[in-house]
Amino acid sequence: MEAIVDYDIVSIDEFDALTSTATKYPAREHAKKAGKQLGVKSGLVYLPGEGVSQWEDSDMGPPFRQRRFFYYMSGANFPGCAVTYDIGADNLTLWIPYTPPSLVLWFGTTPTPDECLAKSDLNNVKYIADLPKYLNSTLEEAGSLFVLRAEQIPKSLGLGLLKPSIKIDTSALLPAMTEARVVKSHYEVSMIRRANDISSAAHRAVCEGFRRYANECEVEAAFLQGCVAENAHMQSYPVIAGSGPNAATLHYDANDEPLADRQLLVLDAGAEWQCYASDITRTLPIGGRFTKEGRAIHDVVTRMQDECIGMIAPGTGFRDMHLHAHRVATEELLKLGILRGGGGGSRVKKTVAEVVEEVLATGLSSAFFPHGLGHHVGLEVHDVAGKQRLMSTVSPWTVGSTGGSRKNKRDMILREDLVHMMKSSANAAAGDASFGSTAAAAAQVLGRPLEPGMVVTVEPGIYFCREYIEAYYLSKPELARYIDTEVLGRYWSVGGVRIEDCILVTEDGYENLTTAPKGEEMLKIINGK
Amino acid sequence: MEAIVDYDIVSIDEFDALTSTATKYPAREHAKKAGKQLGVKSGLVYLPGEGVSQWEDSDMGPPFRQRRFFYYMSGANFPGCAVTYDIGADNLTLWIPYTPPSLVLWFGTTPTPDECLAKSDLNNVKYIADLPKYLNSTLEEAGSLFVLRAEQIPKSLGLGLLKPSIKIDTSALLPAMTEARVVKSHYEVSMIRRANDISSAAHRAVCEGFRRYANECEVEAAFLQGCVAENAHMQSYPVIAGSGPNAATLHYDANDEPLADRQLLVLDAGAEWQCYASDITRTLPIGGRFTKEGRAIHDVVTRMQDECIGMIAPGTGFRDMHLHAHRVATEELLKLGILRGGGGGSRVKKTVAEVVEEVLATGLSSAFFPHGLGHHVGLEVHDVAGKQRLMSTVSPWTVGSTGGSRKNKRDMILREDLVHMMKSSANAAAGDASFGSTAAAAAQVLGRPLEPGMVVTVEPGIYFCREYIEAYYLSKPELARYIDTEVLGRYWSVGGVRIEDCILVTEDGYENLTTAPKGEEMLKIINGK
Repeated sequence: MEAIVDYDIVSIDEFDALTSTATKYPAREHAKKAGKQLGVKSGLVYLPGEGVSQWEDSDMGPPFRQRRFFYYMSGANFPGCAVTYDIGADNLTLWIPYTPPSLVLWFGTTPTPDECLAKSDLNNVKYIADLPKYLNSTLEEAGSLFVLRAEQIPKSLGLGLLKPSIKIDTSALLPAMTEARVVKSHYEVSMIRRANDISSAAHRAVCEGFRRYANECEVEAAFLQGCVAENAHMQSYPVIAGSGPNAATLHYDANDEPLADRQLLVLDAGAEWQCYASDITRTLPIGGRFTKEGRAIHDVVTRMQDECIGMIAPGTGFRDMHLHAHRVATEELLKLGILRGGGGGSRVKKTVAEVVEEVLATGLSSAFFPHGLGHHVGLEVHDVAGKQRLMSTVSPWTVGSTGGSRKNKRDMILREDLVHMMKSSANAAAGDASFGSTAAAAAQVLGRPLEPGMVVTVEPGIYFCREYIEAYYLSKPELARYIDTEVLGRYWSVGGVRIEDCILVTEDGYENLTTAPKGEEMLKIINGK
Repeated sequence: MEAIVDYDIVSIDEFDALTSTATKYPAREHAKKAGKQLGVKSGLVYLPGEGVSQWEDSDMGPPFRQRRFFYYMSGANFPGCAVTYDIGADNLTLWIPYTPPSLVLWFGTTPTPDECLAKSDLNNVKYIADLPKYLNSTLEEAGSLFVLRAEQIPKSLGLGLLKPSIKIDTSALLPAMTEARVVKSHYEVSMIRRANDISSAAHRAVCEGFRRYANECEVEAAFLQGCVAENAHMQSYPVIAGSGPNAATLHYDANDEPLADRQLLVLDAGAEWQCYASDITRTLPIGGRFTKEGRAIHDVVTRMQDECIGMIAPGTGFRDMHLHAHRVATEELLKLGILRGGGGGSRVKKTVAEVVEEVLATGLSSAFFPHGLGHHVGLEVHDVAGKQRLMSTVSPWTVGSTGGSRKNKRDMILREDLVHMMKSSANAAAGDASFGSTAAAAAQVLGRPLEPGMVVTVEPGIYFCREYIEAYYLSKPELARYIDTEVLGRYWSVGGVRIEDCILVTEDGYENLTTAPKGEEMLKIINGK
């Protein structure tokens, strides 16, 4: 179905030719995977593509962005399509709009059926005007219609006319497709790799120009230029180019402040390639040199990331990686004197190891590292997690919520959550299943182990967000006593450090898909060495 | 209310300081204008701002874009606000969200009340949690609530609890505000000017790099880089960088094809500055030199644009400019031999002038120039037209539709429309009001005359869109006889030419706000001279 190509040894230019001729989007492979997850022998899957929308009171609209579930099963990235998959007949059909000559003048042509067949592995491509007839006749045979949700039931069906024997299922498809998307196909990995290659080169270009830039906007501009000039026109998420205190705002995107008199700039930016995301962060020293404090925090985060990436292999729990990152952070922040033992009236002097355990157990490191260690990457930058998330960051009573919902993917991990995670991990290690009555429930709490073909980010960070730390830690005496405010005072101006790569889980470990320079290499490029 | 500043003599850097300190967004001036258009002595205007939205099945969303009517009356460009204007008390209040420390870590701070007051001319800035109470108490006094449409009635009002004497008006505000926005305030002109300055500099940068670019995407990349590096993070519309046949697709935006072996590239691109648009098009010769045919068409469009811009003054009908552009196009396409007299069996040889009139009357030039000559520019790139459009491009029976609707702003002007426009203009000139029983109706058909403070584009084009010309002209013998297909054959590869500037109507004529190089200056920059 798919030509076997070793993408590693293909240059970017060859790759273009390759993807347009030698390989097709594996739409049928994806459809079969989803069908298998559905676990039925017959039925018709129907997925509408995205249309064109306008802003209110405007004749302009947001950039077109294809629906991801539709794209996964079609490989078609233009408006006005639909796709059907007849599970019993293993028949995948893309339905496309016809473009009359007057619209060619206005908006250009849309791909022809032959062009669609050349680009994606589909059984048929037909004009969408014929879809209602097909749906009605095929449903007689297939018996069931599977849609992602009730709003996606095709309006043209004439529901009143359907035989009572035809069933419309609005709940099974979403979890099935979500699960199908978790482990990436070979083709998908190659797209994520390409997105990473382009974005990594753009990060390198930013490093090269960095000492000339006087404002965050110039960093954003250089990054965008690098991506768009390689035909990566869309970003996976808004570019974050945050200097000084802005580095401590996790989703900062104003990118409009001067760099003068600031220490660090966090650049979190990754382009899309053919709907597949990349997600990369580097933290650059303004002026080309770290301050003592900036260097120290950059070293902490580097150690957190290096050690966590080193843990990646099939079977590893992402939650264990996350907790390890907090252990490293706690150790290092204690060494720097930002954190300290709480004392607590004990007359016995504690060992360093004992202090680490004491402070770790309080979850104090969450003041500085308040988000998850990473997430899946695929058609979404924060990609679907499937039946079970990498980590359950929430209390056990919400474990039942799985699948399609990703509302909480980037939620903060509060100190209480962190403490709970540590306790339940310890309990699990001790064989205590008090947090769940079955092994499955325990696994649910502990998170889904890594599997070959998953792509995940590893993105530890240490931030000095004054509003946050003051409001939730320094204001509470029982927590504040673990923080040396005098030492902390020297670090406010560091702002924050985050380092992030996209990692492919392989059969025997991992491969880092991100090649953006970091560490000493990054410093050399910034300083033109 | 507003400091008087001559923006013409202010450099870009000074301008930054100026707009941030010396001048405020004239929100109250705008509110008063809208109130005057409403023609009422009391009542409360309520406008909600835009929130943050997500794509379906995603935790990401489209870029935030403020609602334009809200911005016009508030100057606030961040999510989660509302604005109220108490007409009787002349009291303009901005309602803003409060950002708790946990959200500061996530999304950064939102402006404080003092920051909002410093940036925009408002009477009050308050937290939005207090809005329901204010609405209820103020409505008791004001008696009427004006909203743009029924969906914008504040849900918090508790409509059931309102006194029956309180009236909710869902229809008067939209046309009133639309009319208020047509003539730009001094501040607004300065924003449009700045958007044009930044975009013009980016067009210049594209010219400088143009001979090095091998793909449309590099043109887009260089343009975006130029804008974003000046803190213009949003484009007014998707960049159009169309080479060869893509130049003939009016809303082309794939921007992903190689330039090799093509003649021309149309770059239609303009950044936003603080929500105000620019709209600029240049047509660049690939390789730095025009072909004979490319040069000829570029000259035609240059003459169309120069002569139409020269007509701009208060009182000028935009429709007259549009028809003049068609006259120029017809004359020049006859000279080039692409168009020709239809013969028609007459034994008398016609003069050149007679042939021009004959071909002009057929509307044949619409095959090559099928869109309107221009539109208003403001908070929208295709800005509101007010009670009366610049040109009524449609048949008289739809003249009644005015105001807020801009659905048809960029609609094609079909040959039939053009013929109708020419006839009705001729009738009007002859004093025949057969197309309307009153002078107002006649003015409606002929379009609204230009007024000082309007900003309009002048954007003639000549396109060779094969699908379009073949389907609607060459396939019809009665039209095809005016086209010399042999000559036309030499022009398909020209693709298309468009040249577009933003023009401010002044008391005594016009000022061209666009400074992007064109003509010989453009050629010199492309060729590094």
